[in-house]
Amino acid sequence: MMSTDFHFRDKIPVAILGATGCVGQKFIQLLETHPWFQIVALCASERSVGKKYRDAVNWHMTTPIPSAIAEMIVQPCQTPLSELCSLAFSGLDPSVAGEVEKHFAEEGYIVVSNSRNHRMDPTVPLVIGEVNSDHLDMVKGQKFKKGMIVTNPNCSVLGLVVALKPLFDNFGIEAIQVFTMQAISGAGYPGVASLDILDNVIPFVRGEEEKLETEPLKILGSLQSDLSIINADIVISAQCNRVPVTNGHTECVSLRLKKKVEPEEIIRAWNDFKGVPQELNLPTAPFQAIHYFHQENYPQPRLHSMLDKGMGVSVGRLRKCPLLDYKFTLLSHNTIRGAAGAALLNAELLVKKGFVFW
Amino acid sequence: MMSTDFHFRDKIPVAILGATGCVGQKFIQLLETHPWFQIVALCASERSVGKKYRDAVNWHMTTPIPSAIAEMIVQPCQTPLSELCSLAFSGLDPSVAGEVEKHFAEEGYIVVSNSRNHRMDPTVPLVIGEVNSDHLDMVKGQKFKKGMIVTNPNCSVLGLVVALKPLFDNFGIEAIQVFTMQAISGAGYPGVASLDILDNVIPFVRGEEEKLETEPLKILGSLQSDLSIINADIVISAQCNRVPVTNGHTECVSLRLKKKVEPEEIIRAWNDFKGVPQELNLPTAPFQAIHYFHQENYPQPRLHSMLDKGMGVSVGRLRKCPLLDYKFTLLSHNTIRGAAGAALLNAELLVKKGFVFW
Amino acid sequence: MMSTDFHFRDKIPVAILGATGCVGQKFIQLLETHPWFQIVALCASERSVGKKYRDAVNWHMTTPIPSAIAEMIVQPCQTPLSELCSLAFSGLDPSVAGEVEKHFAEEGYIVVSNSRNHRMDPTVPLVIGEVNSDHLDMVKGQKFKKGMIVTNPNCSVLGLVVALKPLFDNFGIEAIQVFTMQAISGAGYPGVASLDILDNVIPFVRGEEEKLETEPLKILGSLQSDLSIINADIVISAQCNRVPVTNGHTECVSLRLKKKVEPEEIIRAWNDFKGVPQELNLPTAPFQAIHYFHQENYPQPRLHSMLDKGMGVSVGRLRKCPLLDYKFTLLSHNTIRGAAGAALLNAELLVKKGFVFW
Amino acid sequence: MMSTDFHFRDKIPVAILGATGCVGQKFIQLLETHPWFQIVALCASERSVGKKYRDAVNWHMTTPIPSAIAEMIVQPCQTPLSELCSLAFSGLDPSVAGEVEKHFAEEGYIVVSNSRNHRMDPTVPLVIGEVNSDHLDMVKGQKFKKGMIVTNPNCSVLGLVVALKPLFDNFGIEAIQVFTMQAISGAGYPGVASLDILDNVIPFVRGEEEKLETEPLKILGSLQSDLSIINADIVISAQCNRVPVTNGHTECVSLRLKKKVEPEEIIRAWNDFKGVPQELNLPTAPFQAIHYFHQENYPQPRLHSMLDKGMGVSVGRLRKCPLLDYKFTLLSHNTIRGAAGAALLNAELLVKKGFVFW
Repeated sequence: MMSTDFHFRDKIPVAILGATGCVGQKFIQLLETHPWFQIVALCASERSVGKKYRDAVNWHMTTPIPSAIAEMIVQPCQTPLSELCSLAFSGLDPSVAGEVEKHFAEEGYIVVSNSRNHRMDPTVPLVIGEVNSDHLDMVKGQKFKKGMIVTNPNCSVLGLVVALKPLFDNFGIEAIQVFTMQAISGAGYPGVASLDILDNVIPFVRGEEEKLETEPLKILGSLQSDLSIINADIVISAQCNRVPVTNGHTECVSLRLKKKVEPEEIIRAWNDFKGVPQELNLPTAPFQAIHYFHQENYPQPRLHSMLDKGMGVSVGRLRKCPLLDYKFTLLSHNTIRGAAGAALLNAELLVKKGFVFW
Repeated sequence: MMSTDFHFRDKIPVAILGATGCVGQKFIQLLETHPWFQIVALCASERSVGKKYRDAVNWHMTTPIPSAIAEMIVQPCQTPLSELCSLAFSGLDPSVAGEVEKHFAEEGYIVVSNSRNHRMDPTVPLVIGEVNSDHLDMVKGQKFKKGMIVTNPNCSVLGLVVALKPLFDNFGIEAIQVFTMQAISGAGYPGVASLDILDNVIPFVRGEEEKLETEPLKILGSLQSDLSIINADIVISAQCNRVPVTNGHTECVSLRLKKKVEPEEIIRAWNDFKGVPQELNLPTAPFQAIHYFHQENYPQPRLHSMLDKGMGVSVGRLRKCPLLDYKFTLLSHNTIRGAAGAALLNAELLVKKGFVFW
Repeated sequence: MMSTDFHFRDKIPVAILGATGCVGQKFIQLLETHPWFQIVALCASERSVGKKYRDAVNWHMTTPIPSAIAEMIVQPCQTPLSELCSLAFSGLDPSVAGEVEKHFAEEGYIVVSNSRNHRMDPTVPLVIGEVNSDHLDMVKGQKFKKGMIVTNPNCSVLGLVVALKPLFDNFGIEAIQVFTMQAISGAGYPGVASLDILDNVIPFVRGEEEKLETEPLKILGSLQSDLSIINADIVISAQCNRVPVTNGHTECVSLRLKKKVEPEEIIRAWNDFKGVPQELNLPTAPFQAIHYFHQENYPQPRLHSMLDKGMGVSVGRLRKCPLLDYKFTLLSHNTIRGAAGAALLNAELLVKKGFVFW
Repeated sequence: MMSTDFHFRDKIPVAILGATGCVGQKFIQLLETHPWFQIVALCASERSVGKKYRDAVNWHMTTPIPSAIAEMIVQPCQTPLSELCSLAFSGLDPSVAGEVEKHFAEEGYIVVSNSRNHRMDPTVPLVIGEVNSDHLDMVKGQKFKKGMIVTNPNCSVLGLVVALKPLFDNFGIEAIQVFTMQAISGAGYPGVASLDILDNVIPFVRGEEEKLETEPLKILGSLQSDLSIINADIVISAQCNRVPVTNGHTECVSLRLKKKVEPEEIIRAWNDFKGVPQELNLPTAPFQAIHYFHQENYPQPRLHSMLDKGMGVSVGRLRKCPLLDYKFTLLSHNTIRGAAGAALLNAELLVKKGFVFW
């Protein structure tokens, strides 16, 4: 799909599937100044089709709708799109993402999806840029004509696995207890009713514990020569809660390592950690993937969610666990690091790896 | 100390030490209609002494100051008190509670304290009415002339140990992971700054994890004939967090039992649980100590903190833990069940056990 | 409709229309221990019909569903009801309240409604017990066969008009500026999305300013011999806001009086104010309709919403206004004083005035 | 004070007085990338003197402490400073600002203060860059040897006066009712206790109503040839409230104009408004001083506080007022537009006007 007008464009044209939703809006916000990608198509449900984007969307971002986007006409989630492009970011609702993403992949699009539908498909890579970019090669085993589907994990999984990665590589991990305090923006819009969460905690997030107990095993798994994954051998137990916080999932972790190590070794492993996105200096990559805080009451969602453009994972409070080996607290921005930003990073990796022709 | 004016009074006169603080206010609120106790003395720091209570206090309760209390003159935390009484509830700040409570006990008072200072003293009972009322006999080993000190545990410990008690008795407990989401009222007033907690989580509560990892062992310990306690043999790992909730500590628990049991057996143990306060039908006792909820998103602080006059412990979400045996969520009102109400229950038990003469 | 089984019943049987909604739930909660009324029928939309109430409702109250109510089968909002009763409390959604209430009135029911649909009908009394109970006589001009419709005002109007009433009677009122900070519970459930209100203010509540500028004129109007109302001659300007508060509408008022008066006279007028519900000692009447606070930072929703069983109106901060004459702040519980409690008071007045036969 | 090392520096060296406080932190955050100014001295109270800034400060900003600042040693609020500089930004607490600022001015410093102490001094300009930059000439009448004091108004005053300015100039203003819903960050740290504001409103902000009723009159006043100010002739009535919002003061305004105008003319006046900072293209100036929103539920603190780098004033909901002429809602960021950012703009104006020699 090498384009003939390559010389006439500076950027790779992309489409947003589910453009009016929360993740779609975040894609638009993050792509506003992206050096490689430019939005040329906004796709949404029938209700929005044919309207100007600014009239179709209930915009929740804290920066204004980019002016060029505001005037674009929303089109249906169908091919062919009005503009030539080969890459589509999907923030579609799970109720439709499964079919629509498959359709776009069949029609030749590279679908970079934040939706959960295809995450656990055996041929679909579930990728965190800093953790398992090698898994992107799984797309070679996909049965679409020309397109492909690439996914990133659930918002509460992402920060956890980034923080685990250097420990997994250096010391091995046997077992994890993880307990989350998740932001309301993770539930989309209108999402959580204010009467349910103001001055309250909901000790339940539907489907979240299952994802936390399974997705990390695939991500930390090892890619085989037949493009299959052998899952990591870790036992994970998760307890998920919704708290009255706008952005930023906080997670308390207790874990058992394979090696006996000192706290300083763990902190050093975090501080020294560099992923492929850092090495490639990708536009959306945080300067440092993991930030360890020595203050006893850090990290905190209000203070640290936006660290490193919202792409940093904050870690703190490392201490011995009387039951397993170590305890610590981590924090990541659920709609940037844990959703749209993770997808962008995946797309940037696909470009660098030569999967995106333009 | 049998009083000669016994016939002229309906109720046992009591003093409140630390009457202007948060716990002191809660004592006053809960005692307003108490059938056995009547407040006759309010003691506080020099700043308040000599003032009418209503002028000395920054009242935070959601019911008005009882009118009789409002006009009482605050006196210092010194004996003799202006009015004859033998029982003093202490909500003193830990910075002074140690000395003052000892002084009152030396002078013959029965001090029922919510402060942490004497909790771990080997001769001081650390009692939850429903769990270890037999420990009250430890006061016989105290070296005060006539008085005594009795304590209740920390607010986050209380709900946990009530919920554990029937499991401990029926199935044995080996290990516990507990994660808390604690209400701001647990930090007193002014306590947590709003800039620190609005739209935020603080993953740290000073001293709290240590208490959660030790106090339950004493409470669930067994009283020996020499009035010493042999601690329960449980490994506890705690991770404590402050969340923007006014009242009600929520805790996620994962635990390993000694016996293999079915979920139904655990729920039955909770539902069937009756403590001494229930058997004695004490005024402050909840009708049912533990309420198990079958709804997948219960218990919640806003909905269930005030259950059973704020004295019930709510439990829900029992399910298998991939790592230990079972996981569940519990909730209790931190300033009623977890503080002033627990102390009242202890005082009522002392009356029933014949320690309070009047 | 004098019932033959009068001797067999202690209480007046009542139905709840819209029983699963927020106002319906509040009716059920407030009626649990009502000395005169007993719920015998729960009516709701098709979605709930045929289910046990506890299975049909998403219960939000902070006390449990009364056990007798929990097992009742929900029936449609249609006559005849399964049980004999002549009084129906309506918490119906405005989208259906207009027709359903008319239908029940046609069929002989006394409909005591909290919905807005019939409030401004020229033959429907819009009544606050303490303010204009004489307006209840308007029902004599209604064209229903045997039944009638009686309404209470909007939640933000109620507290305002109670606070204005003694000033209106004693000094006359010419003009009012009112600014509201309204609780989320006023929007029902799911109502306000948490993403819209957590750490935020919404400077708009649909339809609210219009109600605040018109309903008080009818309520403070004078009943004529032909059962029409001549509206009060006051200019009202309202600005309404939603704030992240669960319960309790706070309102800042500035007003111009007809007479020049001293602040003490205004406070005395509030303190001395007694309405018909207080004189008749009605079960739901607050002991004192208006509470004036001298503290400079009172009233506050968290501290004072539940004053006098949630039926008291709190007032404070009276001071001179550089522009009009006086400024003050008022607070009332929006779902009790401002909704279900106001309707109950209206029903109690109807009983006392002899409109309810049983 | 033309410096001899002018050629060796790119930027104007500045000091921060009160560097560890909330406003001081905001100065540091905003100056991190300032093109003209560079912080060379951090001054604070004795408690902090001699410590590294990162050890002295309880940092609350959501971006990290700039690394160069973190290692600087805090010095006392006394001259001479350790580094040569002629400009000092003051975020001092009012308890000490009066004397310290005078001292620095006496010693030749240009003090650009956000504190309230000198605001109403007859020789001290109270300046909003967009509104009355001509008032800066008042410093010529100050009696300090070489230095001067320049102030900006209170946080709730700033947004209001910016929104009023084009109406004042074009149509004249006679009277204003203003009602505020103010963010907790306006009270500094620790400031408002969480128990006082979570799920609550406090209908009182000490001293705020007085400032709102007086400061705008000076700012909108006219500078006379003798450097005195004749206050604007407007009657202002203010009612101030604290709400559970982190950043952004929302204000509801009702006003009477001197001319009768159509809504479109008012909106045009806002849209066309350009202040001196916009004309001079100052680094801290918002691109557009006033943003009018046509959406019925805008502006909102969470969505619009950060508009135009936190320096924009958002206005919406213009409509007729039944009592005065027009009503509208405005919003501005209280610690940027309403505090540190306003001071920076004043300093930039002083540079452009030739008051700052370096």
